[in-house]
Amino acid sequence: MTFPEVTMTSSARRGLFSGMFARGGAAPEVSDAAWLAAMLDVEAALATAQAKADLVPWEAAAAVWEACAPEHFSPAELGHAAVPTGNPVIPLVAALRERVKPELRRFVHYGATSQDINDTASMLVAARALAPLTADLSACADACARLAAEHRDTLVTGRTILQHAVPITFGLKAAGWLSAVDHGLAGLAGLRLPVQYGGAAGTLAVLGGRGHEVLPHLAAELGLAEPALPWHTDRTPIARLACALGTAAGVLGKIATDVKLLAQPEVAEAAEPSAPGRGGSSAMPHKRNPVGAMSALACVQRVPGLVATALSGMLHEHERATGLWQAEWETLSDLLRLTGSAASWLREALEGLTVDTARMRANLGATRGLLMAEHVVVKLGGTPQARALVDAACARAADEGGSLREALLAAPQVDLTPGEVDAALDPAGYLGSAEAFVDRALRAHRGTP
Amino acid sequence: MTFPEVTMTSSARRGLFSGMFARGGAAPEVSDAAWLAAMLDVEAALATAQAKADLVPWEAAAAVWEACAPEHFSPAELGHAAVPTGNPVIPLVAALRERVKPELRRFVHYGATSQDINDTASMLVAARALAPLTADLSACADACARLAAEHRDTLVTGRTILQHAVPITFGLKAAGWLSAVDHGLAGLAGLRLPVQYGGAAGTLAVLGGRGHEVLPHLAAELGLAEPALPWHTDRTPIARLACALGTAAGVLGKIATDVKLLAQPEVAEAAEPSAPGRGGSSAMPHKRNPVGAMSALACVQRVPGLVATALSGMLHEHERATGLWQAEWETLSDLLRLTGSAASWLREALEGLTVDTARMRANLGATRGLLMAEHVVVKLGGTPQARALVDAACARAADEGGSLREALLAAPQVDLTPGEVDAALDPAGYLGSAEAFVDRALRAHRGTP
Amino acid sequence: MTFPEVTMTSSARRGLFSGMFARGGAAPEVSDAAWLAAMLDVEAALATAQAKADLVPWEAAAAVWEACAPEHFSPAELGHAAVPTGNPVIPLVAALRERVKPELRRFVHYGATSQDINDTASMLVAARALAPLTADLSACADACARLAAEHRDTLVTGRTILQHAVPITFGLKAAGWLSAVDHGLAGLAGLRLPVQYGGAAGTLAVLGGRGHEVLPHLAAELGLAEPALPWHTDRTPIARLACALGTAAGVLGKIATDVKLLAQPEVAEAAEPSAPGRGGSSAMPHKRNPVGAMSALACVQRVPGLVATALSGMLHEHERATGLWQAEWETLSDLLRLTGSAASWLREALEGLTVDTARMRANLGATRGLLMAEHVVVKLGGTPQARALVDAACARAADEGGSLREALLAAPQVDLTPGEVDAALDPAGYLGSAEAFVDRALRAHRGTP
Amino acid sequence: MTFPEVTMTSSARRGLFSGMFARGGAAPEVSDAAWLAAMLDVEAALATAQAKADLVPWEAAAAVWEACAPEHFSPAELGHAAVPTGNPVIPLVAALRERVKPELRRFVHYGATSQDINDTASMLVAARALAPLTADLSACADACARLAAEHRDTLVTGRTILQHAVPITFGLKAAGWLSAVDHGLAGLAGLRLPVQYGGAAGTLAVLGGRGHEVLPHLAAELGLAEPALPWHTDRTPIARLACALGTAAGVLGKIATDVKLLAQPEVAEAAEPSAPGRGGSSAMPHKRNPVGAMSALACVQRVPGLVATALSGMLHEHERATGLWQAEWETLSDLLRLTGSAASWLREALEGLTVDTARMRANLGATRGLLMAEHVVVKLGGTPQARALVDAACARAADEGGSLREALLAAPQVDLTPGEVDAALDPAGYLGSAEAFVDRALRAHRGTP
Repeated sequence: MTFPEVTMTSSARRGLFSGMFARGGAAPEVSDAAWLAAMLDVEAALATAQAKADLVPWEAAAAVWEACAPEHFSPAELGHAAVPTGNPVIPLVAALRERVKPELRRFVHYGATSQDINDTASMLVAARALAPLTADLSACADACARLAAEHRDTLVTGRTILQHAVPITFGLKAAGWLSAVDHGLAGLAGLRLPVQYGGAAGTLAVLGGRGHEVLPHLAAELGLAEPALPWHTDRTPIARLACALGTAAGVLGKIATDVKLLAQPEVAEAAEPSAPGRGGSSAMPHKRNPVGAMSALACVQRVPGLVATALSGMLHEHERATGLWQAEWETLSDLLRLTGSAASWLREALEGLTVDTARMRANLGATRGLLMAEHVVVKLGGTPQARALVDAACARAADEGGSLREALLAAPQVDLTPGEVDAALDPAGYLGSAEAFVDRALRAHRGTP
Repeated sequence: MTFPEVTMTSSARRGLFSGMFARGGAAPEVSDAAWLAAMLDVEAALATAQAKADLVPWEAAAAVWEACAPEHFSPAELGHAAVPTGNPVIPLVAALRERVKPELRRFVHYGATSQDINDTASMLVAARALAPLTADLSACADACARLAAEHRDTLVTGRTILQHAVPITFGLKAAGWLSAVDHGLAGLAGLRLPVQYGGAAGTLAVLGGRGHEVLPHLAAELGLAEPALPWHTDRTPIARLACALGTAAGVLGKIATDVKLLAQPEVAEAAEPSAPGRGGSSAMPHKRNPVGAMSALACVQRVPGLVATALSGMLHEHERATGLWQAEWETLSDLLRLTGSAASWLREALEGLTVDTARMRANLGATRGLLMAEHVVVKLGGTPQARALVDAACARAADEGGSLREALLAAPQVDLTPGEVDAALDPAGYLGSAEAFVDRALRAHRGTP
Repeated sequence: MTFPEVTMTSSARRGLFSGMFARGGAAPEVSDAAWLAAMLDVEAALATAQAKADLVPWEAAAAVWEACAPEHFSPAELGHAAVPTGNPVIPLVAALRERVKPELRRFVHYGATSQDINDTASMLVAARALAPLTADLSACADACARLAAEHRDTLVTGRTILQHAVPITFGLKAAGWLSAVDHGLAGLAGLRLPVQYGGAAGTLAVLGGRGHEVLPHLAAELGLAEPALPWHTDRTPIARLACALGTAAGVLGKIATDVKLLAQPEVAEAAEPSAPGRGGSSAMPHKRNPVGAMSALACVQRVPGLVATALSGMLHEHERATGLWQAEWETLSDLLRLTGSAASWLREALEGLTVDTARMRANLGATRGLLMAEHVVVKLGGTPQARALVDAACARAADEGGSLREALLAAPQVDLTPGEVDAALDPAGYLGSAEAFVDRALRAHRGTP
Repeated sequence: MTFPEVTMTSSARRGLFSGMFARGGAAPEVSDAAWLAAMLDVEAALATAQAKADLVPWEAAAAVWEACAPEHFSPAELGHAAVPTGNPVIPLVAALRERVKPELRRFVHYGATSQDINDTASMLVAARALAPLTADLSACADACARLAAEHRDTLVTGRTILQHAVPITFGLKAAGWLSAVDHGLAGLAGLRLPVQYGGAAGTLAVLGGRGHEVLPHLAAELGLAEPALPWHTDRTPIARLACALGTAAGVLGKIATDVKLLAQPEVAEAAEPSAPGRGGSSAMPHKRNPVGAMSALACVQRVPGLVATALSGMLHEHERATGLWQAEWETLSDLLRLTGSAASWLREALEGLTVDTARMRANLGATRGLLMAEHVVVKLGGTPQARALVDAACARAADEGGSLREALLAAPQVDLTPGEVDAALDPAGYLGSAEAFVDRALRAHRGTP
């Protein structure tokens, strides 16, 4: 089986549907191998942090660190061995202990419970997946910023409820995308991903009264935040992460929706980048599907249900939940993978977006001037009487298939010269604060006041 | 790394978290290999059906059938090649054509569009995953039926809003589980999984006016249902499947909830089967966690969000959707896998459930007779005055820490002899239709009227 | 404040947003007054059923029946009095007892628990709301059937992934809508709404061993189904109802999506019925928004989350749930109201839909013949070589802005006469089984084989 | 109908189910009257802001302000008049204009589109509902802080996966609740609720190029934030609000879950405040249901589906959405009402929570010392051999029904004196950092470092 060469991440190579749902850099960071690596990093960092807190000998920390080399462990075997307990950390700890000399074995997973490892690993996995995801989102924002700047004066039809409204600029549309992506990014940037370390039920009893002294060291080792206390059953860190991803995914879905609508042949104002085979069909030779928007939408569609799963899963009983906790693992992975994949797809679509300014201009005229009706009302004084006159002219134009210009000139009560009518019907003269808003969005993006 | 031997499916071997989330027979049926096999089965069946309908030569059908051997194809490669179009069927068809001699190549994927293959494959995948899933659910029902029959007369506390209500039998509780599982099974049994064949936009234009004659043959080849017309954008088959799985998962969650609550040390009326290592903890030697209920709950927790994804994904545009369709693939796989895994976990828990009838009897007395208060009201005539008397006795017993018996005997207006009080306070004398309901549930389960 | 007269249900009059979200006949059936009436009907029917089962005197049944007149009770007062217990049935029963002479008071709510009344009332509310909802859905189906029959031969562009695919008929599109609505209706028609009667914890202990004999009478009195046993914590009846509504809502959303897309000015193939003020804007005189599709979509959007709430709420503890049960009440009302409102909106849109067949014909040509590319491949033999030739012609036409006809005639390897090219490019000659599928959908709708 | 007096908000008086679902101060702030008042406040503030920006005469601003008196308008009539357009703002603007003298009418709703008013009103409604909601949440936090401080040294069983784990303090449990509530509060405090003002399609074209100068004045008038540009189809403000409420609701659900579990008669470590009739049953005299936790859980259960609705509703088309926008109104109201109601219920439960420290102490012994097994391992050196010894002793104690103390003393390899065994089995000696964590949570709550 030979196929044309396609540039992809290693992760996206793996599955039948991964091309669509595991694109970009987040997917490999939520793989089984990445989870296992994170678990090992946590066990190693814990021993080091405990040594720094003077709670275990440095010799033990070094031994644990050496034992935690990922190549010694197989996700599949650990998953298999996890069946009796439901948690791969339990056999992992057993296997780690076997790799440490007997007298130091008690310092493996010292004072910890499985959930300490799973939860800290989940934060580490999230942090690592958020890096490429955020990079792709930032690239989306930059692409929007370029479109906003470049098309600051490009006239395009403003469309509300999928009907023609009033003229806007394509720059303003892109500035709206930009601002939304920047809000999504801000939500992700504001996340605080804490380490977890509480022992069996949150007291760190094994370490006498000094266990909490490990926390700042552990956080520093892993580049995560230090919590005030264990959050075994306070799932706000998970909820916030899910919500920030859900919000970012919604932003991506909004832009992808606009791209798919602009790419309709009847609208044809923008097109995704073309490449051999891209967007093709098994049946129809002429098809050029907006595959980036389509794929982003497919990913985004799956996100809100996952956020609801994360939120409805916050009701953890007492000091550890019976199922709700475990349900977070794949949910979190899916959220990172799918939001990341959507960002990667949309980045490609936006960076290569083709804009047809001539078609934009042409479509402005498709309603034969009706789009400018609001402006005519303004020019006539903005009064209810003016509105009634323009309503009548619009109705007449619509009924007779003529232009609003003709209908206005034919209406005796409309007290405007032909030149004034033409001015009122000129889209370029009715853009209000469009430029100002583009500039405000760009300044906000650049962080300049 | 060595671990104690654990009996598992091959699929559950594969991933770090599969022990919990991919248990049982459904998981392997939604693997990439299973999807690919289903796609190949559809392409082969399509050619055969077309030969039966006299639309392609039998020689071509044979050639397609031979080309469709799964060993020739790799999910990972197809997934990779699917990137430019978002659909693995497109490179699959290309690869199949390479395996057929040139003059017959046009009969590969004849008249079909990718969605015909994906959708029919999804129904096939569902049918194949539903078989073991349904078997596990049926085994759950049978285990409930055994518990209901065996504990037809076992007294246990009826608990409402987690407070003691009135006595019931454990048989009635199990009969309630049974009836719910049977309802879940009925929903799955009532599903009609249709083949999809409509060509590029639902007209089967490539086959002139005879394409629809292929439908009954295709349905017969694959053991699926024949639709009246293509359902490319009528997603009721997907919605119904998702809903039936969501309902079955909810039933499993209800039973698992009861099991986890009964297994609390303070209640201790039932326990999951024990085995070395089962339900253990990395930190606490004494832990015997209800790992079956816990795992079932973890799986079930993820289902409602997936059903919402399926339902909110029904808004397919025109003749093929831009993303909502593709979002169904993993959603459907997850629904089958997680519901199947929950059924497998709960089956084990129910088949090995240990029931502590002595503890059940003891717990009945935990509220010192308050549980029988309603019966005393009945014995006193069921009037509001009787209720007021019993309310007062209950309050006194609660305040003074004494028994309801003492409070009743001490209340002058309560006109009952000590023997009548004892009869009123005997749980075995206040079971109403419990036995009748057990019998009704068992008869319904056995299909006898 | 005076407004133009609008025909609405009384319910839709009530709230600021009810015009959009409480249209049609389902909304008043889920009002507080309707719930209260249903609760009273259940209490009255229970007494009658118990009299028929020879468990209470007919005099008592008559007294209860008389007490249950809705005009004696106020939802607001009951709601207020429900605060200490969380359930309006408790003060309702107290108030009912006050309306019955003392010696018969014990037969009010005899042997019942609040949940018996709430649950049976919820099924009654559902049955009553489903009647107008189903009528509106059926009217939608009939409107689709009329469109399918009338436009059996009306050519229109088949659109996949929002791109032009191949020609279809508008009749086929309407037949697809019809089939989906019929599937939605079948799901609702298949529902079995059971009465609930189990007493405090499902044993009906107050009635000795004969309580279950009341069930068939109660079911017959209320026109509901008889369950095998109490379903206090088997929530499959709720789940199935929610799922059937969710599926029907999804179907409505699919059709509304198509209507909004067809109504785009750039497509303009269909329009909603117009009326003075309908679809207007506060700012733009010319706007004619597709207000029916928009409103239906607004309603439908809220449904999947509610279904997920119903499904995730199935995990009722023991014999009565701590919150999950109560969460069903408003959820169920919202599901019925919103699905009903969507059906009512779409009915109006479909019954008055304006179809612009000339524009449909014109849009078919918008891609200058590319839409017929698949047919040309077929005419050239359907081989990969033929596909390659047509691919090249499509690319040339796209690049040069010319027609596919010109590109084909200019390609030396394309062995077709101009007449054959014209035939290959004629949309009317490439409709395959479109007519057959329309007929199949219509036959299925009419119930004829 | 007479009922005992109950203190409630006026809003909660209104409906049959409002006692449970519309408790507290948020509910009246999302009523129709509140929405209408907010819309009028926005129209009035807009005119004032425009006067400040020197865009309309002060006389006009004054006239608009006077017209905007809520008593002139009826939500029901506006809702009725909204049917043709789907938006009550349209008839509201018409009615406002009638209340202003003709020559100033053009300054009513000047330059605005309906969505400007709805969106800004929604932010105002949210701000007003968040005030009492946040107050109730803060009171929950304070109640948790009191419990944490008061029970800093109260021993209680730590429970993981609903099994006994190791001893903790009730103060630590309450500190965990406190920390979670504080995180929920921080999420709400971090919200930025922006005004909306963009005109028909986001350009404010009616105001020439100066429309954006209105924004800071409008924000200041209403106490809301100033956005960089119109967010008509950037729904991140809605998404973030929904997510912050969803997170807060999840926290409330976690605490309510613990309360319901602690209130089980078999556990009985905490109880909700009692009052005449509170938590009663229609059938069972003795019932004292945890009605606060139950009601909070009923409210919380409905929230995640609403958040998913908000997030899946972000895909607004172009410059205004076709349905997704309108679907936000009731969704947002429900989110505020239900989260607010849950906070109000839980506040009552927490402020009056009865803690049974004797029962807590007694339950610690329920597993006959097994709870201390981890400590024994620590005392024996924490090695795998120690773990094996303790595993064996635990198994023996479990099998023989004896205590861990007996099993340890009977095991020859366990090298501990009876005094050492007793010390190892003393829960008070195995609390680790419990006190430190309580102090950290209290310090974080008080904002002291």
